[in-house]
Amino acid sequence: MINQHFLSMLNNKSVIRELSEYATARGKEIGYENVFDFSLGNPSVPAPQSFTDAAVRLLETEDPVRLHGYSPSLGLPDVKKTVAESLSRRFGVPYTAGLIFPTSGCAGAIAHAVRAVSKAGDEIMIFAPFFPEYIPYINDTGAKARIIPAHVPDFQINLDALEQYLEQVKIEGQEAMDRVAAVLINSPNNPSGIVYTEETLRKLAQILTRKSEEFGHTIFLISDEPYREIVFDGKTVPYPAKYYAHTLTCYSFSKSLSVPGERIGYVAVNPACECAEYLVPMMGQISRGIGHNCPSSLIQLAMAESVDDTADLNVYETNMNLLYDTFKDLGFEVQRPGGTFYIMPKALEDDAAAFCKKALQYDLVFVPCEGFHAPGYFRVAYCQDTEKVRRALPVIRKFAAEVYGR
Amino acid sequence: MINQHFLSMLNNKSVIRELSEYATARGKEIGYENVFDFSLGNPSVPAPQSFTDAAVRLLETEDPVRLHGYSPSLGLPDVKKTVAESLSRRFGVPYTAGLIFPTSGCAGAIAHAVRAVSKAGDEIMIFAPFFPEYIPYINDTGAKARIIPAHVPDFQINLDALEQYLEQVKIEGQEAMDRVAAVLINSPNNPSGIVYTEETLRKLAQILTRKSEEFGHTIFLISDEPYREIVFDGKTVPYPAKYYAHTLTCYSFSKSLSVPGERIGYVAVNPACECAEYLVPMMGQISRGIGHNCPSSLIQLAMAESVDDTADLNVYETNMNLLYDTFKDLGFEVQRPGGTFYIMPKALEDDAAAFCKKALQYDLVFVPCEGFHAPGYFRVAYCQDTEKVRRALPVIRKFAAEVYGR
Repeated sequence: MINQHFLSMLNNKSVIRELSEYATARGKEIGYENVFDFSLGNPSVPAPQSFTDAAVRLLETEDPVRLHGYSPSLGLPDVKKTVAESLSRRFGVPYTAGLIFPTSGCAGAIAHAVRAVSKAGDEIMIFAPFFPEYIPYINDTGAKARIIPAHVPDFQINLDALEQYLEQVKIEGQEAMDRVAAVLINSPNNPSGIVYTEETLRKLAQILTRKSEEFGHTIFLISDEPYREIVFDGKTVPYPAKYYAHTLTCYSFSKSLSVPGERIGYVAVNPACECAEYLVPMMGQISRGIGHNCPSSLIQLAMAESVDDTADLNVYETNMNLLYDTFKDLGFEVQRPGGTFYIMPKALEDDAAAFCKKALQYDLVFVPCEGFHAPGYFRVAYCQDTEKVRRALPVIRKFAAEVYGR
Repeated sequence: MINQHFLSMLNNKSVIRELSEYATARGKEIGYENVFDFSLGNPSVPAPQSFTDAAVRLLETEDPVRLHGYSPSLGLPDVKKTVAESLSRRFGVPYTAGLIFPTSGCAGAIAHAVRAVSKAGDEIMIFAPFFPEYIPYINDTGAKARIIPAHVPDFQINLDALEQYLEQVKIEGQEAMDRVAAVLINSPNNPSGIVYTEETLRKLAQILTRKSEEFGHTIFLISDEPYREIVFDGKTVPYPAKYYAHTLTCYSFSKSLSVPGERIGYVAVNPACECAEYLVPMMGQISRGIGHNCPSSLIQLAMAESVDDTADLNVYETNMNLLYDTFKDLGFEVQRPGGTFYIMPKALEDDAAAFCKKALQYDLVFVPCEGFHAPGYFRVAYCQDTEKVRRALPVIRKFAAEVYGR
């Protein structure tokens, strides 16, 4: 018999994907340039030339048997070394090659990190709002996602709710405490665009340190950082592993190098993390059962040559400012994003799904945030040509005026 | 706490990898050209120029945003169509694009296929001798590998043992029958080099059809075929899906295109398979939990342009003949391989590990087959320059003469 669990998942269609499919279909009717499709988080700028040049040069000059040969199950040593050196230089955490595990993007990184630090029945805490895929990413490992509600309206981590939850666990007793394996955070955040502040990360580390002591085991921090390089106002994103030793950093080059289809990222294990020396070799073992076996060798090598480059990410800040100013001007309740290519205003009625449905009449494709556990809000993905964002602004104004009298 | 299961796996080092590491270390001492390293199944011939040319052209001429963009979660439609048409044309099974699921090699394909047709506690039957990785590939899905002993000396499937086992299950009752989910086969076979005959496949199909009826549910066939294109004497490998409707074919281009590091393959679902229309979409769901999310877009596209090409695989047949004739001449009990780049003679003493250890004194690196569930045999991987194989032959003769008086 085919697997009934995965069969039943076919009925739970992703809202984002449904809206994106709608936008594509609508584009065929009226021309895609007339559909303001803010549904998908697909980078809109080209990969840096250094990535393309590296890939071409490797293909044209390297011995193909060596170039396309099996990567060691823990990744290509020189690639790991390059990533470790780059991270150490940039963030001051002294990584070595052995602490880097190349993966097929952040999805692959989280699949390994969660399995490494939890077992079936354990809990991984996640903070609303969050990327809805975190639920299958976690639950299909055998562990269980535990959702901590959002901190409205600034969308930093709700530290009080976290502490309350952990107090509750403590009251339930040792078995419940034993199940608390890790927290999974995402900053800059999809869908809110919010960057967790140093203060947030410091307090989170304090709570985790204190509760690890009380619970009698280390609570790990899994930090998902695909948007780390897309940050506004000339700032840099506070690096979570600097604030908490027991951190597994999950990274993808999908956004920074604009290569989401190439599936390249890594897990970086903080050298001060408990059992640091075992975690990457364990991920090699985890790969066997999940059929991972390293990202493409060619892509690993090309990435290593572009490790400190990025695509031209400025367009995202330009777009953010245009949209933020417009939403603000129209009286939307909205936080100014510190990074990513998302903004998450509050809808102009309680039911964000109804709001987004009405927006579709204006060919504005927004995503309601129920699935992100931010009910009442909607996500606008502005990985778009600025020209199109500019053309969308009067349409947004017209929609808000005609439907909501703004 | 870190995961104790994956931690404990660190102690079970792969014999193949240990021997390969020994060979590398020894190569540094005496020169790698003097170590006859027959341990690893790493292709030794370059990828076809068509693959390299396609990859370079894509990089140089395609819009990078499109080229490196997210692949749909079920794979790039044109790539799926190309694979479907190639398989239909070559094997007469009418695949369509929707029945093809691109994966990161056979490991990825098996990870999806097993999960699609089984659930935790189910049994997947495998036939000795088999690739040792099948055990973690299966067991880490939650299903359980059930080993059917080898058919000695021809190493076809032991159909009698299979029938006996299934009879036994029937006696145990409905619950036991419900657990029998699938069989996983591998032809041409690693480690034996044996190609399953039409007769074997036809009889296997008969048994599975009969038992599916008796058990009240379909028993699926998962066919792992990475060596399908490496076949000798101008023959073609009988294509298992032609003989049994409920077949999920797992393929990798690692060997045929000599690109094992690029991690590219697929699952092809027979259109006549039970629930065929659901299986590929289900694999898209399975990907979420295991962090797979498609192989690299660039590699998918380059593969599609080389789908009917192969590297120059003739060297493997040349090497096979040289080794087979030598082993035969020395009185080894050995089957002539029909394909792959492996041969599996019987050792000259009962303990194959002891035999291989003695061979190391002559810098001959063979792999004992206990792990493949063929105790007493050893595997010789002849993906090597023919010149080196020729130089190994007198060393093999010397070893057999001096140690075993042959």
